[in-house]
Amino acid sequence: MRKTILLNNRPQGKPTVSNFEFVTEDSELTVSEGEILLEAAYVSVDPYLRGRMSDAKSYIPPFELNKPVHSGVVAKVVASKNEKFKEGDYVSGMLNWSTQQISNGEGLNKVDGSKAPLSTYLGVLGMTGLTAYLGLNEIGKPQAGETIVVSGAAGAVGSVVGQIAKILGLKVIGIAGTDEKIDMLKDKFGFDAGINYNTSKDINADLKKLAPNGVDIYFDNVGGPISDAVLFNINRFARIIICGAISVYNETELPTSLSVQPFLVKNSALMQGFIVSNYAEKFPEAIQKLAGWLSEGKLTYTETIVEGFDNIPSAFIDLFEGKNKGKMIVKI
Amino acid sequence: MRKTILLNNRPQGKPTVSNFEFVTEDSELTVSEGEILLEAAYVSVDPYLRGRMSDAKSYIPPFELNKPVHSGVVAKVVASKNEKFKEGDYVSGMLNWSTQQISNGEGLNKVDGSKAPLSTYLGVLGMTGLTAYLGLNEIGKPQAGETIVVSGAAGAVGSVVGQIAKILGLKVIGIAGTDEKIDMLKDKFGFDAGINYNTSKDINADLKKLAPNGVDIYFDNVGGPISDAVLFNINRFARIIICGAISVYNETELPTSLSVQPFLVKNSALMQGFIVSNYAEKFPEAIQKLAGWLSEGKLTYTETIVEGFDNIPSAFIDLFEGKNKGKMIVKI
Repeated sequence: MRKTILLNNRPQGKPTVSNFEFVTEDSELTVSEGEILLEAAYVSVDPYLRGRMSDAKSYIPPFELNKPVHSGVVAKVVASKNEKFKEGDYVSGMLNWSTQQISNGEGLNKVDGSKAPLSTYLGVLGMTGLTAYLGLNEIGKPQAGETIVVSGAAGAVGSVVGQIAKILGLKVIGIAGTDEKIDMLKDKFGFDAGINYNTSKDINADLKKLAPNGVDIYFDNVGGPISDAVLFNINRFARIIICGAISVYNETELPTSLSVQPFLVKNSALMQGFIVSNYAEKFPEAIQKLAGWLSEGKLTYTETIVEGFDNIPSAFIDLFEGKNKGKMIVKI
Repeated sequence: MRKTILLNNRPQGKPTVSNFEFVTEDSELTVSEGEILLEAAYVSVDPYLRGRMSDAKSYIPPFELNKPVHSGVVAKVVASKNEKFKEGDYVSGMLNWSTQQISNGEGLNKVDGSKAPLSTYLGVLGMTGLTAYLGLNEIGKPQAGETIVVSGAAGAVGSVVGQIAKILGLKVIGIAGTDEKIDMLKDKFGFDAGINYNTSKDINADLKKLAPNGVDIYFDNVGGPISDAVLFNINRFARIIICGAISVYNETELPTSLSVQPFLVKNSALMQGFIVSNYAEKFPEAIQKLAGWLSEGKLTYTETIVEGFDNIPSAFIDLFEGKNKGKMIVKI
């Protein structure tokens, strides 16, 4: 018996479990020539998936209704008629939210659980780490001695961004939503300072104290009022990396905020959106760097691992309540 | 007798003549060793000056109160004790709003009225042309066949941007505020199409019709709701050049608008503010290009020339009513 999760209807505002439908099938899957049969081991849930659940007007390409949702998955090859993969291999790639599925192997990479835990291939050695490394380096062009602010800093991407920035010699300030997360940023990830946006009376004023020389790079995972506050502190030639906008993914109306244009003109500042696949040709170099830092102990990570296929939707929904620390992963 | 215009008090909202004070002095100016005596010939009034009239919170560096306002000026050397300049030379540079003044020559460039009309050194061969050329090329990185939208298109910078884009093989759509300006964009400057934002019922929908393949470059002179409408039409990897924000210069509260971050993430788009002096090392190359196109007749320009030193403040104020076509210049 295998289970699959379909997008049943498009979320209005915050997603709920009723947006998803579980389908159970008993028929055996047939492996044709060139194909492999996969059994899901770890499933990644990520804020950006919310965008793809909306219709075409907001984020493209949207997921289709009544079709399986897909995301980053580490899966075990349980049968193979494809010479590139053998039974027992583990692979990572964009796969359906299904306990079992057939693939022709395209877009899948073999991963080695003896070199690093399998879940890291969805996190620090997967899209999460690549997003952090490539967004920071390709757009942020960090220089030792500069100051960076990271929002969503305790999240999967944010915590890696801050650590890489420290390795590169920057002053790193993280913004997150609980004191526990702020402590983790400083104690575990080596951030220089943190701001709890839920208890701060004035994020702008706090930043002025923590970054008296201004902000050179802002790695923006959230958008909204937190990003507005950072704008008041950017330096001339600042680089603002727009990685995500979790604060607005669930808005049903298009959100408004402080006009950024006057700040960008005044400071000759840059704001650049990206998705990690823009830099696909740099993946090997980035993975090599990240794996090196990981094995040297310069880079660490936090995972929130939820157990059980049935809990994928609720784990996804919990992202929008900030219930995860670091990468949110469901172990099947 | 010489006259000087001081900033008397900071505009609240739209500037008025009462923000300025005229001072008349009878004393002779003394030319010391290394100095020159200048007589203003043409004075440039520009939207960005409004920003500098505000206090430090909004645009820096602000003009000082009870000090002369300054902007681009073409002046005649009427006495010289500086070997680089002789009587009868014309120079351009940032100079005070004064009928006569002393300078040590720093930052001044000699200009030649026999090669091009003196006023063009404040326009198409001056900061205006440089802003258009360098903003478009350095940030926009235009490619033949792409589509560009220019707001403030009938203004001094906008009309040059559109013409350069046509020379480079782009499809050019201008946004301006009267039908007469739209006709000028198409008939005089060779734009492919124009949108009158005052009569358009839906700029977003008009753009969808005029740019069915989407917008690759947006040269933004205005900010505000016009720019919001363009955002809905940007393509993947779009470049948005933030040159000015005339729609918000006079706002007394910080303006809000559609959040740009979701659009930038979705399209991997870039938004970059600049001032022309960032690219000072490219001025000679740019001037050469512009002067070449001008003499070949590929580039033309419009000036609105107001006569009389006393009319400088009102000419400046008229910018915010869109009363100028092309570069607004006061002839002394």
